[in-house]
Amino acid sequence: MNADLINPFISSTINVLTTMCQTTPKPGKPALKVNNLTWGVVTGLIGMAGDEVTGNLMVSFDERSILELVSKLLSDSFTTVNQDVIDAVGEITNMICGGTKQELNQKGYKIQMATPLVLAGKDLAITQLGENPTITVPFKIDAGEFVVEASLAKR
Amino acid sequence: MNADLINPFISSTINVLTTMCQTTPKPGKPALKVNNLTWGVVTGLIGMAGDEVTGNLMVSFDERSILELVSKLLSDSFTTVNQDVIDAVGEITNMICGGTKQELNQKGYKIQMATPLVLAGKDLAITQLGENPTITVPFKIDAGEFVVEASLAKR
Repeated sequence: MNADLINPFISSTINVLTTMCQTTPKPGKPALKVNNLTWGVVTGLIGMAGDEVTGNLMVSFDERSILELVSKLLSDSFTTVNQDVIDAVGEITNMICGGTKQELNQKGYKIQMATPLVLAGKDLAITQLGENPTITVPFKIDAGEFVVEASLAKR
Repeated sequence: MNADLINPFISSTINVLTTMCQTTPKPGKPALKVNNLTWGVVTGLIGMAGDEVTGNLMVSFDERSILELVSKLLSDSFTTVNQDVIDAVGEITNMICGGTKQELNQKGYKIQMATPLVLAGKDLAITQLGENPTITVPFKIDAGEFVVEASLAKR
């Protein structure tokens, strides 16, 4: 997975959270994901499929970051990861993937998005079939951290 | 999600396991999935995306059924759900989804498949965004049981 493919995920993440949650996250250095465990306490997940490329996007939040982001997104105060927060993770993941899709389309990669899913729980084992690497991009906001994990490869 | 959409998942499941695992599973009555928990100890998951429809497929196995099916698939004896079994769940889910895709294409629904993922663990909370129902189809083989769960809806 080259920079041409990962950069749209990073810029879309920044755009979506800046616009929708009034929070501009700072990206860290992309790295290869070295285990098959969910990083945070709640993880949004979307399958991506196209004629040329296929993969998955995961966005995984620590508790402090997602409570802050959803409180801003919904203009309410959330103190626990309840069903409203879980649904909002799905919406945020969907918006990040949607923005990524637009950028990838402009680069000539046509992808379609599956329906978002949200996994609750840290360190859950989730294995992607095949040899395609997953790239992890850490992000920081004042309240906490989250990661964007993308695996998108040519068929 | 109407019968036109669920039936290809059922026939593909029977075809794949009969051909690849020399085991013909007996389907039970499709029902609405009423919780958001993984059914079995190991669950294959694939996002599905098309211009007209979007959704996810999950195939979730109890321990006895998946050990029996993978033992037959790989002509070896498996007694625990190890990484080989987890990878095989991804392959089986991929084949079931591939067969379903072909049948749906013939019915005029063009879908693409994302890369399969495999979740290890029973009763994990996994929520699909939105109001589209998920249909659960229980299957029995001599050794145990599994379920095929599909949510595929028009955009």
